[in-house]
Amino acid sequence: MAKEVTNREDNYSQWYNNLVVKADLAENSAVRGCMVIKPYGYAIWEKMQHQLDKMFKETGHQNAYFPLFIPKSFLSKEAEHVEGFAKECAVVTHHRLMVNPDGPGVIVDPDAKLEEELIVRPTSETIIWNTYKNWITSYRDLPVLCNQWANVVRWEMRTRLFLRTAEFLWQEGHTAHATEQEAIEEANRMVNVYARFAREFMALPVVVGHKTESERFAGAVDTLCIEAMMQDGKALQAGTSHFLGQNFARAFDVKFANREGKLDYVWATSWGVSTRLMGALIMAHGDNNGLVLPPRLAPVHVAMVPIFKTEEEHAAVIGRMEDLKDRLEKAGLTVRIDDRDNVRSGFKFAEWELKGVPVRVAMGPKDLQNDTAEVVRRDTLSKESMPLEGLAQHIVALMDDIQENIYKKALAFRESHTYKVDTYEEFKKRIEEGGFLLCHWDGTRETEEKIKEETKATIRCIPTDTDVIMEEGKCIYSGRPSRQRVIFARAY
Amino acid sequence: MAKEVTNREDNYSQWYNNLVVKADLAENSAVRGCMVIKPYGYAIWEKMQHQLDKMFKETGHQNAYFPLFIPKSFLSKEAEHVEGFAKECAVVTHHRLMVNPDGPGVIVDPDAKLEEELIVRPTSETIIWNTYKNWITSYRDLPVLCNQWANVVRWEMRTRLFLRTAEFLWQEGHTAHATEQEAIEEANRMVNVYARFAREFMALPVVVGHKTESERFAGAVDTLCIEAMMQDGKALQAGTSHFLGQNFARAFDVKFANREGKLDYVWATSWGVSTRLMGALIMAHGDNNGLVLPPRLAPVHVAMVPIFKTEEEHAAVIGRMEDLKDRLEKAGLTVRIDDRDNVRSGFKFAEWELKGVPVRVAMGPKDLQNDTAEVVRRDTLSKESMPLEGLAQHIVALMDDIQENIYKKALAFRESHTYKVDTYEEFKKRIEEGGFLLCHWDGTRETEEKIKEETKATIRCIPTDTDVIMEEGKCIYSGRPSRQRVIFARAY
Repeated sequence: MAKEVTNREDNYSQWYNNLVVKADLAENSAVRGCMVIKPYGYAIWEKMQHQLDKMFKETGHQNAYFPLFIPKSFLSKEAEHVEGFAKECAVVTHHRLMVNPDGPGVIVDPDAKLEEELIVRPTSETIIWNTYKNWITSYRDLPVLCNQWANVVRWEMRTRLFLRTAEFLWQEGHTAHATEQEAIEEANRMVNVYARFAREFMALPVVVGHKTESERFAGAVDTLCIEAMMQDGKALQAGTSHFLGQNFARAFDVKFANREGKLDYVWATSWGVSTRLMGALIMAHGDNNGLVLPPRLAPVHVAMVPIFKTEEEHAAVIGRMEDLKDRLEKAGLTVRIDDRDNVRSGFKFAEWELKGVPVRVAMGPKDLQNDTAEVVRRDTLSKESMPLEGLAQHIVALMDDIQENIYKKALAFRESHTYKVDTYEEFKKRIEEGGFLLCHWDGTRETEEKIKEETKATIRCIPTDTDVIMEEGKCIYSGRPSRQRVIFARAY
Repeated sequence: MAKEVTNREDNYSQWYNNLVVKADLAENSAVRGCMVIKPYGYAIWEKMQHQLDKMFKETGHQNAYFPLFIPKSFLSKEAEHVEGFAKECAVVTHHRLMVNPDGPGVIVDPDAKLEEELIVRPTSETIIWNTYKNWITSYRDLPVLCNQWANVVRWEMRTRLFLRTAEFLWQEGHTAHATEQEAIEEANRMVNVYARFAREFMALPVVVGHKTESERFAGAVDTLCIEAMMQDGKALQAGTSHFLGQNFARAFDVKFANREGKLDYVWATSWGVSTRLMGALIMAHGDNNGLVLPPRLAPVHVAMVPIFKTEEEHAAVIGRMEDLKDRLEKAGLTVRIDDRDNVRSGFKFAEWELKGVPVRVAMGPKDLQNDTAEVVRRDTLSKESMPLEGLAQHIVALMDDIQENIYKKALAFRESHTYKVDTYEEFKKRIEEGGFLLCHWDGTRETEEKIKEETKATIRCIPTDTDVIMEEGKCIYSGRPSRQRVIFARAY
C-alpha cells in the first residue's frame, strides 16, 4: 500500500495526523497554525453544514453576516469576555504596504497606522451586540434569531489539524430575547440540536451537560455542551450553547420596551460548532485502515473497482457497473467507478478504505459469469459475494445498517470506558487509561483546580440527564458531601 | 408609508442607499468600510450561492478552503500582482493584546510582534499556488479544479454597501491545467457560467468581453468579464474570469511532468463573483417603490395580506390563505401571511413592495363572498381580482412571467441606451447621459488613458460577440485605423 497509516495502538496522535493528511482531508499551510481544507475534507464539512443549516432554519433561525474585524475597544466592554478572548489574537494595525525603498519586496507603510487597532474576530458577541442595539427597541422586535457561517481566528500556540487551529470555520448563533426563560429555553434547544446532529448524522454518542463555572464561556451565565469520547478514552467538546443572561446587553446598552412599556435589558444566547467536528468524526470512528465515515456524511457512498484482463472483460464489467451506478444514484447515493489505469486494484481498495467510503464493490470476469459482485462494508470489512439482482436495494439498505452500527460501536466503547469512581486513589489510576470517570465533587473551584493540576483531568460537564448522576455521596478529593456525580476526563 | 425612498430620478445614488438600508438588506457597521448583511439580504445571497455552487459542481469543480492570511513576502512573488494588490490591505502585525498598565482597556502587546507580517487576503492566487506546488507533480494530477467561498479584504477609501466595501464575500475559482488551450477554455467556460447565471437567475442582461490590458487583473494574461448596465446608464462589472498563463506557476515554481515526461510550468485560471452582485440586482431592477426581485432569487415569492373588520372575517380570510399557501408551497414557492396586528394593510403593502416580493395577494370580506382574491404583480404593479379556483397555478405561472418580463425590461433599457458613436464630440455629449458607447479605438493604452482623463469613461470590454463589433473604422480619439468597436461607459 502506498500510503501507510501508523497503528492507532502504537501512537494515537500520529495515527490521527496520518489519517487527516493521507485521506486528503486537510494539511498545514505556509501560515503558522492555519490549515488548508482539501476538497475531500471540505466535502464532508459541506455535508455537515448543509444538515446543521437545515436544522437551524427548522428551529426558526436566519443567516446573516457580521464584520470580520472587531474594534479593540469593543473587547473591553464585557469584563469577563475580555479576559477570555483579548489575549492571543490577530491584531490589524496598518492598512497599507509600500515598496521597500531600501531593497526588494514590500514593507508596511508607517503612515498607514490605524487610529484604533482591529482584532480579527475570535467570536462575534461584541460586534453583533453593538449591531443589535440598532435593531431592537421594542418587544415586537424580539426574538432576533441569527446565525452566521464564518471564519474565526484564535492565535493558538500549539495547533493540530481540525482540533485546534489558528483559523477555523464555524457557525455562531446569536439570539436576543424578551425574557430570561425564553433565552434559557433557546440555549437548551440548540445544545439539543447539536446532540441530535452528532448522534443521527455523525453517529457520535454525546453527553449533554453544563460546564462548571471555571470552564464556562467568557461572558456566559451558563454554558451547555456536548461531550464525546474518542477512541483513546479522551473527551472532546464538540459543541457549546451559552445562556448569556443580560451581560452583553448591558455591555452594549441594548434595551427594549417590554409589553408593559418598561425598559429592560435584552436576554441573550450564543452557540457554535466548528470544523473541530471533523476531528471528532475522524477520531471516533477511524481504524488502522483509515477513516470510517457514517453514510449520512460521506461524500462518496459506494466505490466500484473493476477487475479485468482483456479489453473485452473491461468493457463488460464497466457496463454492469454503470448500470448499478444508475440505480444507486436514483436512490440518492453518490457513486464513483474507479477506472484508473495506472494503479492496481489492491491500491484502489486500500485508498477507498483510507477514505472511509462505506461500501466498496468489485466485479471481475467470474462475477460476470455468475451475475454477482463482491461487496465489502467499510465498518466491519466483511466481504460477501452477492447476486447482482436486487443488489442496489441491498446496498441502499446497507447504508442505514452501517450508520446504525457505527453509532452502536461508539456507544458500546463509551459505555465500556465509563466508570463510577469513588476514591481519589482509583481516580488517579483509572485516569491514566482514559475514559469518563463519574465522580462526586464538592462543587468548589478549588477542588476542581487541584484535581486538574494533579491529574490533568477536568470536569467535562454536569450531565443534564440527572438519572445518571443524582445520588448522595462524598467528594473524591475533599470528602465533603456531594449530591451528584460529574464527568471527569482528560480532554482534547 | 413609514419608510420613504428617495426618487430614483432625483438622486440615483441616494435612492440606491435608501433601498439597501430600508429593504433590510445591509447596513454599515462600526468598523469603517465593513458591512453587516442582514437576514433578508443574506437570504438573497444564499440563493445566489446555491445556484452558482450548483453550476460550478456541474462543470466539475470542488470546494476547498485556504487560509485567510497571506505572508507579506508571497505578494511580492508575482511582479504585477504585487502592484495591484499590495497596496490598500489589512496588515496583521501582532498576535496578542495585554491589559493596559497605564489605564483602562487593553493594548497591543509590543512583545508579540510577528516575525513576518500577514496580509488579510485581498484574493488568494499566491497562497493557493504556494499550496498547489505540493499537489501537482505529474499531468495525472491535472486539472485541479477548486473553488472557495470566502471573505476577502481590500482597504477601500470610499465604500458603498455591496458595491465597494473593505470586506466582502465572494467565491474564487482557482484551476490548474496541463495545457494553455485547456486553461483558456476553462476561463471561457466560467465567464459563460457567470453570464448564464446573470441572465437566467438575476434577469440581468450582460455583455461578455475581454478587458483591455490596462483594466486586466494584476497578474493575468487575459481577463474576461461580464458587464451589465444599471438604470442610470452606468456600467457595472459583475464578474471576471482570468487566464493567468504560467505567471503564478513561475512565481511559485509549480512544475509538472507532462505526458512526454518533460517538466513544464502549470497553466492557470482564476474567476470570481462577489456580494457586488447584490448591488447589481438592486440597481438593475429596483424602482421608486423599492426592490423588484426576480422570482428565482426571491427569498419570499408571495406575501399575503388579510383584510378584515371582525374576528370572524379574520378567521375566514386566514383559513382561505392557509389553503392557498399550502398549494403554493407544494409547488415550491415560499409564502408569508402577514398577520401583524400593529400595522395597517397599506403599510404592509408598501413594505412588501419595498422588499421586492414578486406577488402580493390581498383578501377581504368581499373576496370571501365572491371566492376571489386581489393579486398584484410587483414588476408591473398591476392589480387584478381573480377567482380562487386555479389561483395557485396562476401564481406559479406568474413567476415565470415576471422573471422573463424583468429580463426583457432590462434588456430593452440597455438596447435603448447603447449607441454607435463615431466622433469624439458626440462621445463627450453622449457620455454625460450615460449608456454604452460602441466606438472605434486605436488599441493603445495612451488613447484609452486620455479618454478616461477627459470623460471619466473607460473601456468596459471588447465584446466576444464579434458580430456586434467587427467593422473597419477610425478611432474616435486619434483617428487612426481600427478594425473593431469596443464598449465605453462610465462605471461603478
